[in-house]
Amino acid sequence: MTIILTNAWVLTLDADFTEHNPGWVQIDGTTITALGAGAPPAIAGAEIVDCGGDIVMPGMVNTHCHMGMSVFRGLAEDVDDRLYRYILPLERKFVTPDMVRIGSALSALEMIEGGVTTVADMYYFETEVGAVVAEAGLRAIIGQTLADFNAPDHADFDTGFALVEELVDSFAGHALITPSIAPHAPYSTGPAVMARIAQWSDEHPDVRVQIHLAESQLEVDWALKEYQSSSVAVVQRSGLLRPGLIAAHCLHLSDADIGLMVAAGVGVATNPRSNGKAGRGIARVEAMRAAGLPVGIGSDGPMSGNTLDLFAQFAPVSMFAKLLAGSRKPLPARDVIAMATIEGARVLGLDSLTGSLEAGKQADMIRVGIGATRLQPIYDPYSMLVFAAGPTDVTDVMVAGRWLKRAGAVTTLEPKKILRDAMQIASAFKAEMIRIDGEQS
Amino acid sequence: MTIILTNAWVLTLDADFTEHNPGWVQIDGTTITALGAGAPPAIAGAEIVDCGGDIVMPGMVNTHCHMGMSVFRGLAEDVDDRLYRYILPLERKFVTPDMVRIGSALSALEMIEGGVTTVADMYYFETEVGAVVAEAGLRAIIGQTLADFNAPDHADFDTGFALVEELVDSFAGHALITPSIAPHAPYSTGPAVMARIAQWSDEHPDVRVQIHLAESQLEVDWALKEYQSSSVAVVQRSGLLRPGLIAAHCLHLSDADIGLMVAAGVGVATNPRSNGKAGRGIARVEAMRAAGLPVGIGSDGPMSGNTLDLFAQFAPVSMFAKLLAGSRKPLPARDVIAMATIEGARVLGLDSLTGSLEAGKQADMIRVGIGATRLQPIYDPYSMLVFAAGPTDVTDVMVAGRWLKRAGAVTTLEPKKILRDAMQIASAFKAEMIRIDGEQS
Repeated sequence: MTIILTNAWVLTLDADFTEHNPGWVQIDGTTITALGAGAPPAIAGAEIVDCGGDIVMPGMVNTHCHMGMSVFRGLAEDVDDRLYRYILPLERKFVTPDMVRIGSALSALEMIEGGVTTVADMYYFETEVGAVVAEAGLRAIIGQTLADFNAPDHADFDTGFALVEELVDSFAGHALITPSIAPHAPYSTGPAVMARIAQWSDEHPDVRVQIHLAESQLEVDWALKEYQSSSVAVVQRSGLLRPGLIAAHCLHLSDADIGLMVAAGVGVATNPRSNGKAGRGIARVEAMRAAGLPVGIGSDGPMSGNTLDLFAQFAPVSMFAKLLAGSRKPLPARDVIAMATIEGARVLGLDSLTGSLEAGKQADMIRVGIGATRLQPIYDPYSMLVFAAGPTDVTDVMVAGRWLKRAGAVTTLEPKKILRDAMQIASAFKAEMIRIDGEQS
Repeated sequence: MTIILTNAWVLTLDADFTEHNPGWVQIDGTTITALGAGAPPAIAGAEIVDCGGDIVMPGMVNTHCHMGMSVFRGLAEDVDDRLYRYILPLERKFVTPDMVRIGSALSALEMIEGGVTTVADMYYFETEVGAVVAEAGLRAIIGQTLADFNAPDHADFDTGFALVEELVDSFAGHALITPSIAPHAPYSTGPAVMARIAQWSDEHPDVRVQIHLAESQLEVDWALKEYQSSSVAVVQRSGLLRPGLIAAHCLHLSDADIGLMVAAGVGVATNPRSNGKAGRGIARVEAMRAAGLPVGIGSDGPMSGNTLDLFAQFAPVSMFAKLLAGSRKPLPARDVIAMATIEGARVLGLDSLTGSLEAGKQADMIRVGIGATRLQPIYDPYSMLVFAAGPTDVTDVMVAGRWLKRAGAVTTLEPKKILRDAMQIASAFKAEMIRIDGEQS
């Protein structure tokens, strides 16, 4: 089956940022087979989709998420002790395979609606998450979290490793799902377990490793006190700072830390909304990229950043870079869109498959309508995407040649049922919040 | 004519942040006459609008804008010398009454679509802007800019004052439009002209005064060099720091400056996206509010902040306050929505008319749909509005009892014609940009 998108403003995000306007993209099966400017080739039996001048670009890559948590979205905002007062008690009580399935479905639905085609997730009961994501049709890195505290699905690291192996077995050879092992953070895993994970990873080179790294002052203080070094150096000495490691946040990095990460071949997921909303600080995105680290964009979990599309992250990541430098120039809009697509794919080790529109790559792409008042006029499509567009402008979404959203409607999931399930489960959390506040006041 | 909105989640934004859920609001003519929880009163002949559980709240107050500039939106991004390289030459060549009408219509359309019901504008040919805004049905402060450089509509201050008086005459007694005199900034007006404006304002107490204040390091350096003081102190000594002054930006304020402004009864318009995108810095919103300054939110002009709804400003204003403090706690979501409504109205001196839903106030209100995936579940409506909602969630907009948007469609303007005009004029600017780049390269 051949599909040809025509009359599109094609942003390829290839190495030269080639644009075809008007342009066309040909898809055969799961794959982009050709693309170019002007009129498309005449191919008998091909389905022709006239894009009416809209933008066609690579699907976005959300490099850090906790999909199961969307049912907690917006709960306990603006309080400093939310982790210990609300999140941990709620997770201990409510995180079950059922909850994770419901939350992950809500998250998958929202991401498809907003133009995300690839996501890197880490949470609990991840075999369940993988099943939901596979049904939704998204490309994903699915990471089972390992932690020494409050893990709702494992009492100790041995049990945690068993969950990872179950996950790996479940998705061996899956076309879209790549399993992952996800030590929660250096301080909640510890050097000995990180060394064990490093050794396990040597034996499982296709399993991605994800970790929260240099996220908080608490972590900086922990590493300094316990190991007289940075937390990046602790991870490095454990053997876990390695090619393909996906390091989320990275707010507290010295130049030396960045050097260690470049030497090791690590990728970074920056989460500007989550970090800003927590008042935690601003990641040195320009410094990391200048040193050669690939930096993708992440939504973080919906309790931290609320929404899961990447549009909401664009203005923050851009403004933060400009504020750090005191200038308009850093991180131009085109670079932000590159981070959201091809550079994010590089962070996840999936850039040979996705992240740009090039012949031979998987057909992971989105159509963005440009007719809304707030988008016009358009002098630069990248600036429009970064500073004016939003998830509701995404009209169509395709992953590996399959439509996940067509003409504004998600085709692989049941939105009404998903929303009903999420609202129902949320009412139980509301009751528990009221109980906690009553107990502690 | 009586209209009753029923079955709504009413956020009144009154002094107690009263919510009615489910609730109702009764409108007679231009005015809110009653509101409450549960079932509405039975009134013969009233039009009943079932809001299906959606949020009904005060229309938003955009406290700082340059509406005419929307046709320049997104032009010359990410360059440090944009003002002198592009903006001033383009303004000199292209700013005409026609351009200002087209840009202002595009801006009015976008603001209505996104839930803004009151706007404070300052630019050139403002009698034209007032005419467009009056036709659109928005409530507005319409400010004629006075500057000693590059003013496309006045060669000197005398001519500028004549334009202000024409504006004042044109809108004397208008129900929705309040004329305003807008000295561009301390450094571009100078103490002598500011003193003249202060004197003129004593004779015209109903005309609002707007100014850009403490916006850049350049301004700080100018005041220090020329007057050995802060620019706020320069304005104060000129007599212009006065009750009702609307001061935009206010990025560089000492505690002493804040003290002067509180004593004078000034209001502040903070523009987080514009300031962040320019890399200029973060306004001390918490410090200003704690000292007693009312702080509203502004989009700034669409060349600076791109979009004109206030949703795009919410996460930045919140994150900036939290980042300055290094904590999740500052500027909780409810305060952000207060800034966008009642506090913004206070900054504009219109809080007896608009900014909250209370009996006796003008019926300036919006309906926000809560059905989108990214908005659910909702634990706190303010957090949902600040961190997840967007302009496309606004379904209905009313100003002074008149629908400006109904069931998703703007009723007072012609969107297709406005967009066509804007795109046409933009093509001339594109050609000029290419010419400038050719000349300078």
